[in-house]
Amino acid sequence: MDYQSFFQTELTALKDDGRYRIFAELERRAGSFPRARHHVDGDVNEVTVWCSNDYLGMGQHPSVLAAMHETLDSCGAGAGGTRNISGTTHQHVQLEAELADLHGKEAALLFTSGYVSNWAALGTLAARMPNCVVLSDALNHASMIEGIRHSRAECLRFKHNDPADLDRLLATIEPGRPKLVAFESVYSMDGDIAPIAEILDVCEKHGALSYIDEVHGVGLYGPRGGGVAEREGLMDRIDVIEGTLGKAFGVMGGYIAASAALCDFVRSFASGFIFSTALPPAIAAGACASIRHLKVSTVERTQHQERVAHVRRRLDAMGIPTLDNPSHIIPIMVGDAHKCKMISDWLLEHHGIYVQPINYPTVPMGTERLRITPSPVHTDGDIDRLVTALSEIWSQCALARRAMAA
Amino acid sequence: MDYQSFFQTELTALKDDGRYRIFAELERRAGSFPRARHHVDGDVNEVTVWCSNDYLGMGQHPSVLAAMHETLDSCGAGAGGTRNISGTTHQHVQLEAELADLHGKEAALLFTSGYVSNWAALGTLAARMPNCVVLSDALNHASMIEGIRHSRAECLRFKHNDPADLDRLLATIEPGRPKLVAFESVYSMDGDIAPIAEILDVCEKHGALSYIDEVHGVGLYGPRGGGVAEREGLMDRIDVIEGTLGKAFGVMGGYIAASAALCDFVRSFASGFIFSTALPPAIAAGACASIRHLKVSTVERTQHQERVAHVRRRLDAMGIPTLDNPSHIIPIMVGDAHKCKMISDWLLEHHGIYVQPINYPTVPMGTERLRITPSPVHTDGDIDRLVTALSEIWSQCALARRAMAA
Repeated sequence: MDYQSFFQTELTALKDDGRYRIFAELERRAGSFPRARHHVDGDVNEVTVWCSNDYLGMGQHPSVLAAMHETLDSCGAGAGGTRNISGTTHQHVQLEAELADLHGKEAALLFTSGYVSNWAALGTLAARMPNCVVLSDALNHASMIEGIRHSRAECLRFKHNDPADLDRLLATIEPGRPKLVAFESVYSMDGDIAPIAEILDVCEKHGALSYIDEVHGVGLYGPRGGGVAEREGLMDRIDVIEGTLGKAFGVMGGYIAASAALCDFVRSFASGFIFSTALPPAIAAGACASIRHLKVSTVERTQHQERVAHVRRRLDAMGIPTLDNPSHIIPIMVGDAHKCKMISDWLLEHHGIYVQPINYPTVPMGTERLRITPSPVHTDGDIDRLVTALSEIWSQCALARRAMAA
Repeated sequence: MDYQSFFQTELTALKDDGRYRIFAELERRAGSFPRARHHVDGDVNEVTVWCSNDYLGMGQHPSVLAAMHETLDSCGAGAGGTRNISGTTHQHVQLEAELADLHGKEAALLFTSGYVSNWAALGTLAARMPNCVVLSDALNHASMIEGIRHSRAECLRFKHNDPADLDRLLATIEPGRPKLVAFESVYSMDGDIAPIAEILDVCEKHGALSYIDEVHGVGLYGPRGGGVAEREGLMDRIDVIEGTLGKAFGVMGGYIAASAALCDFVRSFASGFIFSTALPPAIAAGACASIRHLKVSTVERTQHQERVAHVRRRLDAMGIPTLDNPSHIIPIMVGDAHKCKMISDWLLEHHGIYVQPINYPTVPMGTERLRITPSPVHTDGDIDRLVTALSEIWSQCALARRAMAA
C-alpha cells in the first residue's frame, strides 16, 4: 500500500471535480469588521467579508473584548484540564448558568464546539437510552448525523421540515421505546426555518424527546436572543436546546440547555465531554458577556434583519437568483462547483469582496452557491458594491437571472 | 418512557458506585499558579492545584498572554466561521507552520481540541483507506478509540506497549491492505512511555502507517519540546504525530503533523474538521507564542523534571504507594472510588490541596488514584505541604504504605 499516492490520488479527484477547497487567509480587524486583510502569495489586500457567521459582529464588541482581556489577566490562558480534573473554572459555571437562564431551562452544559455538543449529546442520549430510536430531519447538520451514527441506535430520517412524515414514522414505533427527535431551527445552507410548533405537537403526541439545534438562531431571534424557539414561545416545550457561542455570540464553544437531570446525564457519560480540555476561562467570559449584552440589547437584531432585507431587495431587483427563505441567510444559487469558485475568485480579485464558494459535502452537488450573510456592520456602500459586482459578473458570464423584480 | 426518571436512575447508580463526579469550581490566578481560588457553597478558599495538565505553567507565561491580548485587540474574539468559510486567519496559518516545524513535518492541521484531532484524523484515515485495518494499543485514549470505532474499520487491539504482539497481529493481515498503527507516547494515567523505536520497527517491517499521540509529551520532552519522539530522534520515522495545545502549551486546541498530502487529505475529508468553527485567532496566537518559547527555552523542561523527581523522592521516603514510571505523571494508587474521593475531599478541606480523584471510566475500576502533576511553579514548600498531608491521611486511615524507602 502506497499511502502517499493514495492521498494524492484522492486529492486530485477533488480538484478535478472542482471540490478542492482553498482556504482564504484572513486577518480580521477588530473595530473594522467586516473589513479584513487578505493574505495571498505574499501580498496583503483589504477585503470586505460577506460570508462570516459572526452574524452580529459581536466578535469585536467592546464588552466581549473587555471581559476576555480581564479574564486573561486574572486567570491566564488555558483551563489546564478537563472539566473534571481542575478545568472547571468560575467562568464556566457562570456561563452555564447564563445559558440555562437564556433558554429557561434548569441547566446547561458547555462543550468545546457546537459540533462536539451535537455529536456528544446526541451520541450519548441515543446510545444510552435502551433500544432508543432516533428520528432525524433529512437535512440535519453533519455533527448531528455523526453523533447519531456514532450511537449505533436505529435512525429513521423524516422528510425535511415535514411534521406529517415524522408523525407517520413515529406511529410505526412501539410506544414504550425511547424516541429522540432531532432537528434544527434555521438550516444554515438554505436558510429555511423548521415548523417547530408542529414538530413539537407530534413529539408530544408520541412521547418523544425533542432536540433542537439552534446554532443559527441563538443571539439572532427572540426578545432575549434565545433563538427561533424563544421568538415563537416554544422553549419550554423542547427537551434539549443546542446552541453555539461561535456564531452570533462571536466567540467559540457549544452547549446544550435542558433539565438538570439530562445535562447531568450527558455530563456524566459523554466521552467527548469528559475527555476534552475545558474551554479557556477567557473564552467562557467573552461568551458570557456577549450573551448578557444580547439579552438586553435588541438593536443588533433589528439592524441585522434590516440589513438582510436590504440586501435581498437589491438582489431581487437585479434578478440575482437567491433562495427564498424567512431567515438571515441569503443563498445565491450557482449550481456548479467550478463556476461558483470562479465567481468567488473574481469577486475577491477585482472587488475585494470575499464570499467563499459553498460546495459538496456542505451542500448537495448541483446546488453550489454563494452564501451571503449580511450583518449590522455592513454599510449601504458595502451593499452597493456587492450588488453591483454581482450584477457585473452575472452579465459577463451570462448567468441566469430571475425575471427582474423591479 | 419516562426520560427524566431514566436519567435520575442512572445518576443514582453512579452515586452509589462512588463514581459520580463533582467538579471543583476554581478561579485560576495568572501570576500565582499553582494557586487558585476554590468556590464552594458561596465560600472562596485559596488552594494549591496539584492535578493540572498545564504542566509547565505556560498558561500564565507573559509571552503567551501578550500574544493573546494583542491578537484580541487587532483581530477580535472569535474566528467567525469554519476554516473554509472565512475562519482561516493569519494566526492559524502561522501556527500550522510552527507545528510542522516543531515536528519536522511538511505540514500540520489544527483542530478545536486534542480529542477532536484524534477522533477526526483516525476516523477519517481508517474510514477512507479502502479495507483499512487499525492496530490500536490496548490502553489508547478514549478519543482514539472513538475515532477508530466511528470509522467502522476493522480494529485489532495489541497488548499495551508490546511490539511483539503488534508484530504477531500485523503478520496475520494480508500484505496489500492499508494498516494503521495507533499508539501514545506517554500514557496519561499510568505515566508509562511506549517503546516507540520498537513499535516503528514493526510498522516499517509490515508497511503500516504509524500514528502517535504525543499530547502528554509535546512541550515537555525533546530539545525543542517536540515530544518523546523528538527526544529519541524518531520523529522522521513516524507518519502522523498528534498533539495538543491545551496541556504543556497552556492554551487550547489539537493538531496533527504529517506529510502535506496526509494533512490535506484529512483537511478535505474529516467532518469534525470541516464543520467546526475555527479556533479564535487569539488562541492560535497564544499557542504559537508558547511553542516558540519552548522551542528555545529548556529551563521549564529541566525544572519540571527536577520537581517531579523531588516529589517522587519525598513520596517514596514516606512509603506512599505510587506507580513507577519514567514520566512526569505521579499516580498515587488508592484502588477504591469512595476512598479516593474521601482523601481528595480531606486534602481540599483541611490542607487547601486540590487533587481530583480519578475513577472509572478514566481508569479501570479497582485502580482509582490521585494523579499528581508537579510543575516548575510548585515550590519546595508546596511539596512539603503535599507530602506531609498525604502522610497524615495515610496514617489516619491506615492506608497501605510501601516498604519505607529511606
